[in-house]
Amino acid sequence: MNSNMEKPYVVGIDIGGTNTVFGIVDARGTIIASDSIKTAAYEKADEYVDEVCKHLLPLINTYGGADKIKGIGIGAPNGNYYNGTIEFAPNLPWKGLIPLAAMFEERLGIPTTLTNDANAAAIGEMTYGAARGMKDFIMITLGTGVGSGIVVNGQMVYGHDGFAGELGHVIVRRENGRLCGCGRHGCLETYCSATGVARTAREVLTARTDESLLRAIPAEQITSKDVYDAAVKGDKLAQEIFDFTGKILGEALADFIAFSSPEAIILFGGLAKSGEYIFKPIQKAIDENVLAIYKGKTKLLMSELKDSDAAVLGASALGWETKELS
Amino acid sequence: MNSNMEKPYVVGIDIGGTNTVFGIVDARGTIIASDSIKTAAYEKADEYVDEVCKHLLPLINTYGGADKIKGIGIGAPNGNYYNGTIEFAPNLPWKGLIPLAAMFEERLGIPTTLTNDANAAAIGEMTYGAARGMKDFIMITLGTGVGSGIVVNGQMVYGHDGFAGELGHVIVRRENGRLCGCGRHGCLETYCSATGVARTAREVLTARTDESLLRAIPAEQITSKDVYDAAVKGDKLAQEIFDFTGKILGEALADFIAFSSPEAIILFGGLAKSGEYIFKPIQKAIDENVLAIYKGKTKLLMSELKDSDAAVLGASALGWETKELS
Repeated sequence: MNSNMEKPYVVGIDIGGTNTVFGIVDARGTIIASDSIKTAAYEKADEYVDEVCKHLLPLINTYGGADKIKGIGIGAPNGNYYNGTIEFAPNLPWKGLIPLAAMFEERLGIPTTLTNDANAAAIGEMTYGAARGMKDFIMITLGTGVGSGIVVNGQMVYGHDGFAGELGHVIVRRENGRLCGCGRHGCLETYCSATGVARTAREVLTARTDESLLRAIPAEQITSKDVYDAAVKGDKLAQEIFDFTGKILGEALADFIAFSSPEAIILFGGLAKSGEYIFKPIQKAIDENVLAIYKGKTKLLMSELKDSDAAVLGASALGWETKELS
Repeated sequence: MNSNMEKPYVVGIDIGGTNTVFGIVDARGTIIASDSIKTAAYEKADEYVDEVCKHLLPLINTYGGADKIKGIGIGAPNGNYYNGTIEFAPNLPWKGLIPLAAMFEERLGIPTTLTNDANAAAIGEMTYGAARGMKDFIMITLGTGVGSGIVVNGQMVYGHDGFAGELGHVIVRRENGRLCGCGRHGCLETYCSATGVARTAREVLTARTDESLLRAIPAEQITSKDVYDAAVKGDKLAQEIFDFTGKILGEALADFIAFSSPEAIILFGGLAKSGEYIFKPIQKAIDENVLAIYKGKTKLLMSELKDSDAAVLGASALGWETKELS
């Protein structure tokens, strides 16, 4: 972590399909000011960036102006670290290739770095969270989809094109795999995202006849949170759904370990908060599937970043890595 | 590549289960002197290292003595880069943990670095071969087993314990997968090694009745070379065996791309020399299985290192990275 007395702050901007959240962060990882706007309300990227700046500038000025900001970090879907662009992001209103980092630099005169949201989460975890001091770890974000950020030798893995680390789209079921939003079948995220858990619930409820608290909920409305609530109440079927989900995820994680032999795999996102219901079957499947030389070496951890802050903190951590504008 | 006028050479030692080959290499990647001994003839590691040194020292002295050698690089099964040890290598005569790098340093007074054989091959490819100038690539060695060496941001991926990159042991068939030497089922290497190809040949010849040149060979003696020879002669069944092998490998490579988004995947080893018979189905399976954002971006290349030299060159390339002894 770079703690520069002259420039003691960074800005984190987390761009989601619904909301854009941003804040000013100090070297200890405290968000000292924050605000948000609706992402989808701006048809043109220019209008959107103008609006973020309109809300962000007063915060910056309260803390001494742009001169006090070391850099801006942005986490965005399909964000390309090398170019500072968002490229063909299906969940954002702006089509094609958007040079977002440059657009912020022009308006604010502050160096800006951008990456995808899961990479930002990994950098946040390394800077402020459970991965502090680690040089090799994998961050898995379990949300609507499954994202990942991989750190090797203390550096983010961006790959030759800036798009490395799409572990949610590793194929875990080649035969009769579930259809994925990416157009292929059997991707990890079709089973192990929050959406995947709900999908499993609907499948199991249709295929079987045993009683379950979940039967009280209209099938199309079941969420992974409902499955968790039922599991906590002792619902056997709900617990089995987590066992199934954890098994598939643990099998996949065992393969990921063979790739980068990380010190830890860190789980982040709503589903990760299902605690032992999901961690136990994941750990069991890792232990049963991992190659002997890796056995018992890789820790399975929960993110230590507060959920509400994580996205902004993660993005902001990138701000410490920016270089001065020339 | 470090070309030091004072110390213009490195030594490469490749330790295989049968032979140990070693040589002196210059900065251009030319092996200027080499020799070999039988690995398995020495029950004790101490005797073995003594014998290598006995053969190596005359070569070193011919080229100006130990002062002219920048470093020694060793490629060995189960080699641990961090400790310079070989750890529980099933195909070597010495059991447990052998501090091989230190043993050579003591005897020769030359800094010594060690890694596993596939990593050494990757470093060789980056220093002298098809991966020159690349910062992100994956080396896949197709031999008796399937090995891998992964380079990210221009650095070998060793992982937190020194054992990263065992992609031959990623599970590619979870249901009814073939039994692997590692004790698990469905590993990539049970299908895509030379041994895996021979195994496929035996399975297919038993399960089917169509004619094939391979039927002239006793089933237990069939090698991947026999399958290649038959394929070249137009044998349909032999060609199908390569299609099957290439499909499984290509599917796996498509998943590996989602991990590190490499500029190239480089195939090395006897099987890789089956040319179009194996490259075509691999490329087809990559194209059909890779996530859209990676499509057409990762090159599939054949190693440019001469087979006979590759192991020593790869190991020697590590020698340029050694630090001076303190």
